[in-house]
Amino acid sequence: MRSLLSGNRLAVARVEGFEYVRAVRINEHYAKLPGSYLFPEIGRRVKAFAAANPSAKVIRLGIGDVTEPLAPAIVQAMHAAVDEMGQRETFRGYGPEQGYDFLIEAIREHDYKARGVELAADEIFVSDGSKCDSGNVQEIFAQSAKIAVTDPVYPVYVDTNVMAGRTPAAGADGRYPGFLYLVGSEANNFQPEPPAEPVDVAYLCSPNNPTGTVATRAQLERWVAWAKRTDSVILFDAAYEGYISDPSLPHSIYEIPGAQDVALELRSFSKRAGFTGVRCAFMVVPKGVTGVDPSGKRVSLNTLWSRRHSTKFNGASYIVQRGAAAAYSPEGLAQTRAQIEFYMENARLLREGLTAAGFTIFGGVHAPYIWLRTSGGLSSWQFFDRLLEQAQVVGTPGAGFGPAGEGYFRLSAFNSRANIDEAIGRIRRAFG
Amino acid sequence: MRSLLSGNRLAVARVEGFEYVRAVRINEHYAKLPGSYLFPEIGRRVKAFAAANPSAKVIRLGIGDVTEPLAPAIVQAMHAAVDEMGQRETFRGYGPEQGYDFLIEAIREHDYKARGVELAADEIFVSDGSKCDSGNVQEIFAQSAKIAVTDPVYPVYVDTNVMAGRTPAAGADGRYPGFLYLVGSEANNFQPEPPAEPVDVAYLCSPNNPTGTVATRAQLERWVAWAKRTDSVILFDAAYEGYISDPSLPHSIYEIPGAQDVALELRSFSKRAGFTGVRCAFMVVPKGVTGVDPSGKRVSLNTLWSRRHSTKFNGASYIVQRGAAAAYSPEGLAQTRAQIEFYMENARLLREGLTAAGFTIFGGVHAPYIWLRTSGGLSSWQFFDRLLEQAQVVGTPGAGFGPAGEGYFRLSAFNSRANIDEAIGRIRRAFG
Repeated sequence: MRSLLSGNRLAVARVEGFEYVRAVRINEHYAKLPGSYLFPEIGRRVKAFAAANPSAKVIRLGIGDVTEPLAPAIVQAMHAAVDEMGQRETFRGYGPEQGYDFLIEAIREHDYKARGVELAADEIFVSDGSKCDSGNVQEIFAQSAKIAVTDPVYPVYVDTNVMAGRTPAAGADGRYPGFLYLVGSEANNFQPEPPAEPVDVAYLCSPNNPTGTVATRAQLERWVAWAKRTDSVILFDAAYEGYISDPSLPHSIYEIPGAQDVALELRSFSKRAGFTGVRCAFMVVPKGVTGVDPSGKRVSLNTLWSRRHSTKFNGASYIVQRGAAAAYSPEGLAQTRAQIEFYMENARLLREGLTAAGFTIFGGVHAPYIWLRTSGGLSSWQFFDRLLEQAQVVGTPGAGFGPAGEGYFRLSAFNSRANIDEAIGRIRRAFG
Repeated sequence: MRSLLSGNRLAVARVEGFEYVRAVRINEHYAKLPGSYLFPEIGRRVKAFAAANPSAKVIRLGIGDVTEPLAPAIVQAMHAAVDEMGQRETFRGYGPEQGYDFLIEAIREHDYKARGVELAADEIFVSDGSKCDSGNVQEIFAQSAKIAVTDPVYPVYVDTNVMAGRTPAAGADGRYPGFLYLVGSEANNFQPEPPAEPVDVAYLCSPNNPTGTVATRAQLERWVAWAKRTDSVILFDAAYEGYISDPSLPHSIYEIPGAQDVALELRSFSKRAGFTGVRCAFMVVPKGVTGVDPSGKRVSLNTLWSRRHSTKFNGASYIVQRGAAAAYSPEGLAQTRAQIEFYMENARLLREGLTAAGFTIFGGVHAPYIWLRTSGGLSSWQFFDRLLEQAQVVGTPGAGFGPAGEGYFRLSAFNSRANIDEAIGRIRRAFG
């Protein structure tokens, strides 16, 4: 007998003698998410504008996506890997879920040992992207774990915890009552201090997406001290560490003594080596970082993440890992460094041009993002529409990163020099 | 003040005036998993054997991993894609999260339209692997969703639902009380019929991993009729459909009328095109498949999965997607077809050799797996050890796939012809 559903209403079904109310039950927490993820909404508005203005040459400084081609050393390494995969003698099937030794060793050596940080090989987990890692990591914490996020914030931290059911629906202010928000503001240079009240997990991002500001060593020391004192875990997203130019600033939270007891770190090749379309990242889960189960027993987060990684992931592509490892060769380091310098010169031009146009700006010195205060009291989506209409430039509304982003706007430095120059000229004409 | 933890015991902590019991709370459901995922345990035993017997030439027919090199058409396409990524004019950053049109169109045309199935482009979600898809898909269902799995079963279906907290701990028989097990046996050719009692979601795999058996059209018709009658969803894993040789057998569950209202389908390039180390797969989520939220409102699973995919995933590698698309070119189709025929000739030789050695076997006709009944009343792990010691051949113990796999053993047909011949000879000498 068919189940008796009329329209949207669920009714009693009788199946082979059973009588019960049923239909496939879905994850009801998804309904708590805002209607659309930020970037699809931007894409929708840009598409509509382009359809109405087919001759307009739109310059995209919205989504933080690289534009320079892959470095020659990386291209060469990937060609070699493709050839290996085409020969029986050198073909590779499933790789180690955690990543190939050749890549993990390069990471240990260049990203950590060179900065005085010793990590074991099995504390590094190679993946296909930091978006996945930062979205998946919440799975190893309890359903009842209390989460702290900054505001503004990279939306994936919030959305994935909403989807996991860690909060009731958002209030009228757009905030979820289940989370603790640490507000970034001009007063704290958008780098909030640790909270007074206890949480289980705090997401930190430095150099920061979206604000482009960076945490100082003293600030990270306060965070590590806080986490040790309160027995909390820091999820430290360092996807943009390659853009730090001041040698006194830490690239890794593990440069702070004690951080290997309290912090996981996310890193990515996306922005450091132009891998947004290639897909490779890694997460560091030191064995010293622990949590407790309901009986109070200490469990290493490394054990939990290792289980998660080997059960739900099958390793990053061999070809991609060879490309990532080539980013650490002498040629690869020089070539990717030159790309970063190119983008950061774009950032400098944007900072100067926007300042000359009268904008108050933040970031853009150790990160490829400029965070600007919108002019004329416009909301950040109003500013988005006005910038698109009057300058044909796409940016990202600050409100898309949380209520505290309202009144601010993110521009990315990822583009050709010609487009950056053109965008600055248009913005100055439209707003200056 | 430091938190007051003595050994494993959690105590009261006082932080800045607060007094509370706390430490980072972990996902306690992970502790319900068996000690080690199946394949790491196999790897451990093989490593120990190899260390004790350094001169032994071990033949690996355990993990289902391809051995033939990538097809020339795929190698050529990936070289071209790497070159595109190395040039400014053709470089690509973030791709569409759901996959590039060129690949989605090839899938629609060759995998579906050619078999009479019409799918919309936005019903196909390209990913980096079926292990990820089959592990992640459970997230869109309710925490309270009732899950049915076959026994024996691909462990990822079970483990990921355990990790999500959908069951109490396993009983002494190794079964989780939260799941409904559908027992595969010699009597039903390891293709269980639909259950009488209601569930929300049923995982089906055909051609089956681990048993190598395949569901007939009539069986799939009964499953689709059951799902429609009981308002349930089928997760149909067709990762091995490329190995079906009988033209009367369905390759897709959507060849059964009505299945687009009740079934999601998982497909992979891993076994069809040798992509285990390259990483590409896709999942089909037709818009007609729905579930209900707690208020009884119908929600399309396509909407939920689209949200999940765009929030926690950033698209498969462009280079990899170009390689996958090349598997559908005339040359790619011919070359990958020849690889499958090579593996299936291995399977035929294994079937005949094992039968001649006195084993009772299943599968191996429409799948690259032979499922054999262990001899001499050995448990499947005892048989694993004996096969390793006496024939230096690695297989997979049936018990690793569930209690109903006890007394059975899986051998894979993925290897060189020389190794397959050598393995058959050794097994016949050891057991014949």
